[in-house]
Amino acid sequence: MTALTAQTIASDFSARLIGEDLPVSGPAPLADAGSGAVTFVGDTGKYAADFARAMASGAVVLAPLGTELPGGAAGALILVENPRAAFGQTVARHFAPRSEPGIAETARIHPTARVHETAHVGEYTVVRAGAVLEAHAEVRDHVVIGHNVVVGEHALVKSQAVIGEEGFGIEKDADGNNFHVPHIGSVRLGAHTEVGNFTTVCSGTIAPTTIGDYTKIDDHVHIAHNCRIGRNVIVTACAEISGSVVIEDDVWIGPNASVIQGLTLGRDSLLGIGAVAVKSIPENEVRVGNPAKRLGDNKR
Amino acid sequence: MTALTAQTIASDFSARLIGEDLPVSGPAPLADAGSGAVTFVGDTGKYAADFARAMASGAVVLAPLGTELPGGAAGALILVENPRAAFGQTVARHFAPRSEPGIAETARIHPTARVHETAHVGEYTVVRAGAVLEAHAEVRDHVVIGHNVVVGEHALVKSQAVIGEEGFGIEKDADGNNFHVPHIGSVRLGAHTEVGNFTTVCSGTIAPTTIGDYTKIDDHVHIAHNCRIGRNVIVTACAEISGSVVIEDDVWIGPNASVIQGLTLGRDSLLGIGAVAVKSIPENEVRVGNPAKRLGDNKR
Amino acid sequence: MTALTAQTIASDFSARLIGEDLPVSGPAPLADAGSGAVTFVGDTGKYAADFARAMASGAVVLAPLGTELPGGAAGALILVENPRAAFGQTVARHFAPRSEPGIAETARIHPTARVHETAHVGEYTVVRAGAVLEAHAEVRDHVVIGHNVVVGEHALVKSQAVIGEEGFGIEKDADGNNFHVPHIGSVRLGAHTEVGNFTTVCSGTIAPTTIGDYTKIDDHVHIAHNCRIGRNVIVTACAEISGSVVIEDDVWIGPNASVIQGLTLGRDSLLGIGAVAVKSIPENEVRVGNPAKRLGDNKR
Repeated sequence: MTALTAQTIASDFSARLIGEDLPVSGPAPLADAGSGAVTFVGDTGKYAADFARAMASGAVVLAPLGTELPGGAAGALILVENPRAAFGQTVARHFAPRSEPGIAETARIHPTARVHETAHVGEYTVVRAGAVLEAHAEVRDHVVIGHNVVVGEHALVKSQAVIGEEGFGIEKDADGNNFHVPHIGSVRLGAHTEVGNFTTVCSGTIAPTTIGDYTKIDDHVHIAHNCRIGRNVIVTACAEISGSVVIEDDVWIGPNASVIQGLTLGRDSLLGIGAVAVKSIPENEVRVGNPAKRLGDNKR
Repeated sequence: MTALTAQTIASDFSARLIGEDLPVSGPAPLADAGSGAVTFVGDTGKYAADFARAMASGAVVLAPLGTELPGGAAGALILVENPRAAFGQTVARHFAPRSEPGIAETARIHPTARVHETAHVGEYTVVRAGAVLEAHAEVRDHVVIGHNVVVGEHALVKSQAVIGEEGFGIEKDADGNNFHVPHIGSVRLGAHTEVGNFTTVCSGTIAPTTIGDYTKIDDHVHIAHNCRIGRNVIVTACAEISGSVVIEDDVWIGPNASVIQGLTLGRDSLLGIGAVAVKSIPENEVRVGNPAKRLGDNKR
Repeated sequence: MTALTAQTIASDFSARLIGEDLPVSGPAPLADAGSGAVTFVGDTGKYAADFARAMASGAVVLAPLGTELPGGAAGALILVENPRAAFGQTVARHFAPRSEPGIAETARIHPTARVHETAHVGEYTVVRAGAVLEAHAEVRDHVVIGHNVVVGEHALVKSQAVIGEEGFGIEKDADGNNFHVPHIGSVRLGAHTEVGNFTTVCSGTIAPTTIGDYTKIDDHVHIAHNCRIGRNVIVTACAEISGSVVIEDDVWIGPNASVIQGLTLGRDSLLGIGAVAVKSIPENEVRVGNPAKRLGDNKR
């Protein structure tokens, strides 16, 4: 393996390197970065002291376009539009543990399920009849993938998620007792989606529950049956999305928020932390509180 | 296997079939139902257009008593009191994947546990010492059934639930540090109960935590130690029920609601989505908000 | 094994036994305690009737210093400062099921992980590369211990927890789509910590997320990346702690409470059930509601 240097990272972003082509052995936060570390700074004014120290110590720093090399710096600068995002991509590309393609020995794959040869299936994961894992899908340990679920290309399902068990369909029988109605519509996770630990995406009743491309769902989230979630949506931890909710593209759902069944959350809308949505939300509106009320616009 | 037809379904409910005895290959929502599909309509006025289209396309439709066959319909009608419930039962009986009796090869059953020969135990499920699974109990994959837990007849424990690990018993030791108090009372799940994915029902301290017959508990629910839950209760997703709470029969708990320890929720009461109950609730009362306040009566 | 008697329990606490050295076969709640049972009473006035009945029936009762043996009692008294805590310790020492040191056959331990010979690893638990389980650590069934996680001495990780998978790091790529940023800082659980079922403690981005000694975390809790939690903190069920939150020593977090990212909760502060903290909390302050507001002081 060729050793990683500042120039390799600069080339990853077709970016300009200012200073020497220093070797890089690992990432560090700005306040701790010294020789051998790659780090980033978003605002060289606000973090001036840490930035100066990191440069003096010989760190490689991803910094905003136009940043200048301080006098006497032992470190190097790589100038990019979004240093924080570039740092994340650098960690992903060069330092993060990677799941290899293949199926763990302890995984249980139903004979009728199809797993692409580039997909990863982790320890003790169960993949039921008719499920499909597309190219580069990564399904980690202790996951349950239900009947006929589709996991899209490059989707990531973190450990201990359950995708496609039936939702909570309860009716009364002739004696007035509760009985369980099966839901058989399954789930479709789009390409580049992410589903966190202990998250449930429930089967639709007849048609599938759907999650759009690039949508990211954090840990402990509940997506009930028949929801239709758009693209590039972010659902943070512990949020509860009741049945048949429609969430349009680019919506942001705060931690531990709740959404009553059947609502529509319009494009670019935002529901705050712990908020309880009992009415649909228009496009681009921010709502907070219990019950959730308008706070303002999200994007101008 | 005999092919399924409209008459078979009508006979399941001792119901009247109006129109031809059409073959049925699967269920569909009203808006999508065509030839070969069974579907339902609850309100033929509200959904008149979809109903007309489904009948014209040759669908078999479960409909309210008194509904008439539209002129020129290619489909058939089955008249029942509760079309939605009848549809659910039809899906359950004829189309839903079924768990077979038996114990998965990868399940770990303690030698002192007893599993009825008609019960199902799924992949990687752990059943600890002294636990009992009664007739037709279905315990799916990756479940943990704790010491001495009883899972009643026809109970369903969905994948990734934990029944009967100890609750959260924390005391201070002589040095003022937290220490863990064991709870050994275990759990009794009644007959026809249901417990969802990632739901915890915690062991009682000395006597068992109890869940009454026909009570249905959704995903991500926490039932703490020493709770006593009645019959036909519905606890929806992400609800948090603190220690020693008493929930009487026919109560409905909304998604992501919280109940402080030791309260009593009276029969037929209802706690809304995201509500935080800090006081006991009288019979038949509806409460919503944080803190939860009276909104009105539940049933007249 | 020597039979357990009242004197053994009294000796455990260097406490005074009043009455006969009765045999003890198991624990019971005060209201049910008879011959052969050990139980406790905290307030002999409030629970006078149950206390009198238990003493008449021959129970062994842990009671406050200064309590006198009722006339004609068949039972015995053990006088201690904190009867409830002493009862908990008695159950822990003499009656609770114990996890034996050793690694379950079905556990998957990475060759580079280190498990102390006195630690317990349960069924189907996965321990990834570089993780360390220190002396007397107890990690139960179906747990995932991520890369480089440290589980401290005497720490308890209950079944179905996930420690040290990456947090929810989402950035926008050049096309405006969400992408996943890896977090590689891992997690350090202190000595005598406890983590409940379905609880996530997420990896720090670069440096570890840390949980202080004696801190106890209940079921369904989410601790996001880069949090720093102090000693003797109690986090009850379903609480959501967002990224980079600092929680100082002796804080108490109520069930289903939420904390927005980056806040500091001062020493001895208390956040109520279902409360949503959107601002930092000073030392010793109690806050409740959505948004959380000051209710008063916690300790005098």
